[in-house]
Amino acid sequence: MSANSFGELFNISTFGESHGAALGVIIDGCPPLLKIDTDFILNELARRKPGQSNITTERNEDNEFEILSGVFEGKTTGAPIAIIVKNNNHQSKDYDELKDMYRPSHADYTYEKKYGIRDYRGGGRSSARETVARVMAGAIAKLFLREQQISIQAYVSQVANIKVEKRYTELDLSQTEKNNIRCPDEKVAQQMISLIEEVKQNGDSVGGIITCVIKGVPVGLGAPVFDKLHADLGKAMLSINACKGFDIGSGFDGALMRGSEHNDEFRIQNLESKIRTSSNNSGGIQGGISNGEDIFFRCAFKPVSTIKMEQQTVNLNLQNVSMKAAGRHDPCVLPRAVSIVEAMAAIVLTDHFLRNKIYSRI
Amino acid sequence: MSANSFGELFNISTFGESHGAALGVIIDGCPPLLKIDTDFILNELARRKPGQSNITTERNEDNEFEILSGVFEGKTTGAPIAIIVKNNNHQSKDYDELKDMYRPSHADYTYEKKYGIRDYRGGGRSSARETVARVMAGAIAKLFLREQQISIQAYVSQVANIKVEKRYTELDLSQTEKNNIRCPDEKVAQQMISLIEEVKQNGDSVGGIITCVIKGVPVGLGAPVFDKLHADLGKAMLSINACKGFDIGSGFDGALMRGSEHNDEFRIQNLESKIRTSSNNSGGIQGGISNGEDIFFRCAFKPVSTIKMEQQTVNLNLQNVSMKAAGRHDPCVLPRAVSIVEAMAAIVLTDHFLRNKIYSRI
Amino acid sequence: MSANSFGELFNISTFGESHGAALGVIIDGCPPLLKIDTDFILNELARRKPGQSNITTERNEDNEFEILSGVFEGKTTGAPIAIIVKNNNHQSKDYDELKDMYRPSHADYTYEKKYGIRDYRGGGRSSARETVARVMAGAIAKLFLREQQISIQAYVSQVANIKVEKRYTELDLSQTEKNNIRCPDEKVAQQMISLIEEVKQNGDSVGGIITCVIKGVPVGLGAPVFDKLHADLGKAMLSINACKGFDIGSGFDGALMRGSEHNDEFRIQNLESKIRTSSNNSGGIQGGISNGEDIFFRCAFKPVSTIKMEQQTVNLNLQNVSMKAAGRHDPCVLPRAVSIVEAMAAIVLTDHFLRNKIYSRI
Amino acid sequence: MSANSFGELFNISTFGESHGAALGVIIDGCPPLLKIDTDFILNELARRKPGQSNITTERNEDNEFEILSGVFEGKTTGAPIAIIVKNNNHQSKDYDELKDMYRPSHADYTYEKKYGIRDYRGGGRSSARETVARVMAGAIAKLFLREQQISIQAYVSQVANIKVEKRYTELDLSQTEKNNIRCPDEKVAQQMISLIEEVKQNGDSVGGIITCVIKGVPVGLGAPVFDKLHADLGKAMLSINACKGFDIGSGFDGALMRGSEHNDEFRIQNLESKIRTSSNNSGGIQGGISNGEDIFFRCAFKPVSTIKMEQQTVNLNLQNVSMKAAGRHDPCVLPRAVSIVEAMAAIVLTDHFLRNKIYSRI
Repeated sequence: MSANSFGELFNISTFGESHGAALGVIIDGCPPLLKIDTDFILNELARRKPGQSNITTERNEDNEFEILSGVFEGKTTGAPIAIIVKNNNHQSKDYDELKDMYRPSHADYTYEKKYGIRDYRGGGRSSARETVARVMAGAIAKLFLREQQISIQAYVSQVANIKVEKRYTELDLSQTEKNNIRCPDEKVAQQMISLIEEVKQNGDSVGGIITCVIKGVPVGLGAPVFDKLHADLGKAMLSINACKGFDIGSGFDGALMRGSEHNDEFRIQNLESKIRTSSNNSGGIQGGISNGEDIFFRCAFKPVSTIKMEQQTVNLNLQNVSMKAAGRHDPCVLPRAVSIVEAMAAIVLTDHFLRNKIYSRI
Repeated sequence: MSANSFGELFNISTFGESHGAALGVIIDGCPPLLKIDTDFILNELARRKPGQSNITTERNEDNEFEILSGVFEGKTTGAPIAIIVKNNNHQSKDYDELKDMYRPSHADYTYEKKYGIRDYRGGGRSSARETVARVMAGAIAKLFLREQQISIQAYVSQVANIKVEKRYTELDLSQTEKNNIRCPDEKVAQQMISLIEEVKQNGDSVGGIITCVIKGVPVGLGAPVFDKLHADLGKAMLSINACKGFDIGSGFDGALMRGSEHNDEFRIQNLESKIRTSSNNSGGIQGGISNGEDIFFRCAFKPVSTIKMEQQTVNLNLQNVSMKAAGRHDPCVLPRAVSIVEAMAAIVLTDHFLRNKIYSRI
Repeated sequence: MSANSFGELFNISTFGESHGAALGVIIDGCPPLLKIDTDFILNELARRKPGQSNITTERNEDNEFEILSGVFEGKTTGAPIAIIVKNNNHQSKDYDELKDMYRPSHADYTYEKKYGIRDYRGGGRSSARETVARVMAGAIAKLFLREQQISIQAYVSQVANIKVEKRYTELDLSQTEKNNIRCPDEKVAQQMISLIEEVKQNGDSVGGIITCVIKGVPVGLGAPVFDKLHADLGKAMLSINACKGFDIGSGFDGALMRGSEHNDEFRIQNLESKIRTSSNNSGGIQGGISNGEDIFFRCAFKPVSTIKMEQQTVNLNLQNVSMKAAGRHDPCVLPRAVSIVEAMAAIVLTDHFLRNKIYSRI
Repeated sequence: MSANSFGELFNISTFGESHGAALGVIIDGCPPLLKIDTDFILNELARRKPGQSNITTERNEDNEFEILSGVFEGKTTGAPIAIIVKNNNHQSKDYDELKDMYRPSHADYTYEKKYGIRDYRGGGRSSARETVARVMAGAIAKLFLREQQISIQAYVSQVANIKVEKRYTELDLSQTEKNNIRCPDEKVAQQMISLIEEVKQNGDSVGGIITCVIKGVPVGLGAPVFDKLHADLGKAMLSINACKGFDIGSGFDGALMRGSEHNDEFRIQNLESKIRTSSNNSGGIQGGISNGEDIFFRCAFKPVSTIKMEQQTVNLNLQNVSMKAAGRHDPCVLPRAVSIVEAMAAIVLTDHFLRNKIYSRI
């Protein structure tokens, strides 16, 4: 049992605090002989990196990673892969004045109560800086999935009330990286960006929704009854900082439907004589197991808790006080969270891909 | 690793198929000296039971359970608790004609592809009959939580587009069990019931949403970074048959908000000198750890897949065929699912209550 | 985490007490489509059964098992397999007088202190009756291993100071079941039996050693660094009641040797062009991974704690008292423990066989 | 599931290869507010370090460790603790000539067959260099146990046929660190040292036995039926490189005894009115749970596989060849293994100490 580990066969363990010496991850169970493309890992980190555009935090983080183990002559060996990123850009002083109070909707209060101690610098272990480790592990997972022709693409589908009305099947997802908000609908993207710029000027923050699409998944991934594929995806997403909701396929909208509309009828497609469904309200998963259709799901993100406006809170002496955050922050976490959503999805898929191998008869 | 087990310290393992000899659960890690109230377990099973009203399936199931181990002279001993329910009301014949085809949006196809074999009688392992085991384990968990003054109450908050507009804080949740749909807003409840009756007459089914409220949770439950309390709740709920979505606190609505509205400011309440928040968009969990406020979340359920209308599908010979289900089914799973949602919530809370004990310094 | 579960991918969970309603096991992760030979399971149980000869306890146990789930039309389905055995031959009265005292070298004292409660009837959960569950799970594992041409044979190699001097390679292991003590060296077997009869007449008990040999293991089973194959075998054996020691290959005797004698040199055998070792001090495992040679290990068993002689002990009122056990008991547990050792070995091998499949590329 | 992790609640994950960039460990589940004494960690590493005397390998390793996370202002925070040691003293060239052959009784052959690739430099992941990570984690565990008044002391009790005849209770264990072999019986220690010097001159190696004693253990540690305290200790020890056997209490000698001699009778000691046993053949554990007496066990170590004598083996082209190791090696691993045995024992005890807290009633 390890609260900082995730995955059964493709098992990641992350460590590190926002302003500690380093952040890192150990990946245990990665199949051997996988070629490690370090440029790809760097690129994934760049997608998560703060400071990549004017709508993300201006905070600058170093993302130079070092692989400490598990890779020999460019390939994985089956031994645990440890990767670390040093923390160089400490601005701990920013947090000195906050160390005696509990920032609203942050984890300051709950960590201090649970553990009796907290590293107050930048949120310590509760900081989203931890997701650097997830993105590195996710990059390795993506390299594995690429060999299996499985691809993952997430995008920002909603910021506050500005939303992409088209379904993912009507969009060209390859356009996602073309703008700073990572929304493949360029027109909506510009509206989102304008809104975030406005919110940023007010010192406020804003929430939104990320949609993630996984293509090329073979039939059979997922392990009922508890480790259903979408249950594990749900846990993975809800473990990401600021994620407050998850739904798969028809999701919350499915609650509005009749069975006769919702059911995905099976059909033989003559050309390939393959079983397909004529609709995909199931989101590619039935009974917790992938059915070969696209998997798609949504993640709801609350607005970032750090805002530059004055707020009321309580200090360690149990006094009501007011505070105003000084640190740099994201007005909207979504463009950066796209890479984190994809990383966690890749980890879940790789894990279940390996789990499913057990059932093949020799 | 066990796909049919859930929980770390309060660990349940379920087994059994819809039409096999028996369903059951082993609970490992239940603290010793807990008094087992068998009437309470029976009552929980009755809340899940089919045939309890005209809006649930007329299928009749026996719920006489037998405790095989782990309880001595009415108290738990610390040894694993095994509880089984025999399957007496087999109507396997109902399923004979379906054994050669894949029912739309059921798990027939994915199970057969994954395992190379399936028990086609009533869905076998993929049947919601499995949740009998969860409700029994949940009842034990509730008995434990009762000793800690933690209570759990779920209710049906939406059926199709008929929804309870009031927030849970404006409702009298003790009224939930007063009607067949398990909705504490009596007026809305009657509308829901009418809709389900209509849907049932059409041989169709309908989805909806269950809201669950947990009160009395101490500060400190939850284990970041992956086993955040709401991440484990999310997985628990998404592992329930037909559940397609989960959100906590502000959830998907939080995506629409600004940080300045969403943040829950801390306040000292003078009378008790206790730290409280003035709003609860966090849903009682911050940074993955309970903060002492009420925990509340929603679960979206799709309409039941079994309908009595003709549908198109594929048979085992890869031919397109049409089918019509003969078996008895629920037009709406929600009133019965209330007990399952509560059971899974109780299991998660008990597990994290025990996990949190590790951190107290002797 | 579950203290009553063992194995990662082939995962067993046992439950039940000596005089409770039933004992049983859930096996999760058994590959689907395995044919279940119920006669074979019965036969394995018969090898463990009390009362099978004059040198085992005259206590009679029923071993009629019932498969509750996971098997459909004679084959496993991939769903958890639950098997139970009802307890019919309760003689709880035998234990009434012992309920207020702690039997020497039993688990009465430690269970009561740990859990604050114990089922005193026949030792409750601490009774070796629990191994019924292991033998049933082991039988399933053996059926799987048989398909892989892996065979397991244990035998009694020592009782007190009477020992088989020949190495296992010099013995005909097929003779093991020919006598009541399960020793393939008939002459030594008779000496062992005579000793046990004498010990039994004195109301005493005696210890000994079981040797286990596993043939046909492919190269590659075992998962360093912690789940080395022999480390998992060691834990499996040491978890058996009364087992106090384990060694693999040269074992404790290897401590006496020089590296130049101990090292197993690799050699190509021309006929099959296969890598073999010219000696096997490693016991078939190197670096925690099987190397294709026979695996062999020893398990030391202490003498059974229940004896019919008067002993000194302490009662629940913390008074020194003397006691004399009335219940039926084994003068020597070894002939029955042979089946338990094999069962646990089969579970470990099956588990690591499945674990190793993850590494094969696609 | 993670083969490079050990422990349930006090969970360690190690990574790194002999000649990779770094070795390290993540400890997840360490209670917060534990003071970290870095000098103590350094001292434990020094006890394991090569080159500490003329009877260990002259290979020099750097043991400068760096704590990357989980410690804030000198105390643990409840977050995972990552500690690494850089590998500075690579002499990979020593291994170049060995990369094409399988060294006898090393893991070269099994790793290559299992993973399809191996880091041949110094044994890669299979090298005992990995135990640096264990010793660091063990040092943290010892700091925790020290607070609970639990102490662990191991010593070399046998080298080849030279053995300490006295029982541990007759020895002054505080003398253990006084000589290079770590044997508290000075006279025997000198004989051992002479033997090792002789073996070293011959380019050979020699095995032996380490005895470990744990004092101050409260009643109640251990989790039947599978996670018995001695079963977990056994697995921990058998996972150490070169360890081929484990026994607890009377162990293999117990196999020679009668129940009437072996049983440990309970007695009330009047002065403290505490339940004690009048003998301790159980080795402090009954039914898998500690009974408050001293825990003691033995570990058998084979002679180190690396010797400087010519040996026969096979190369990657499946040809029979002869080889002679050039690298530096230990003639006897035991004096250094004392710290590793203690470290693993400390990890098991800490884990079960935390596990046992779950059972205390609030």
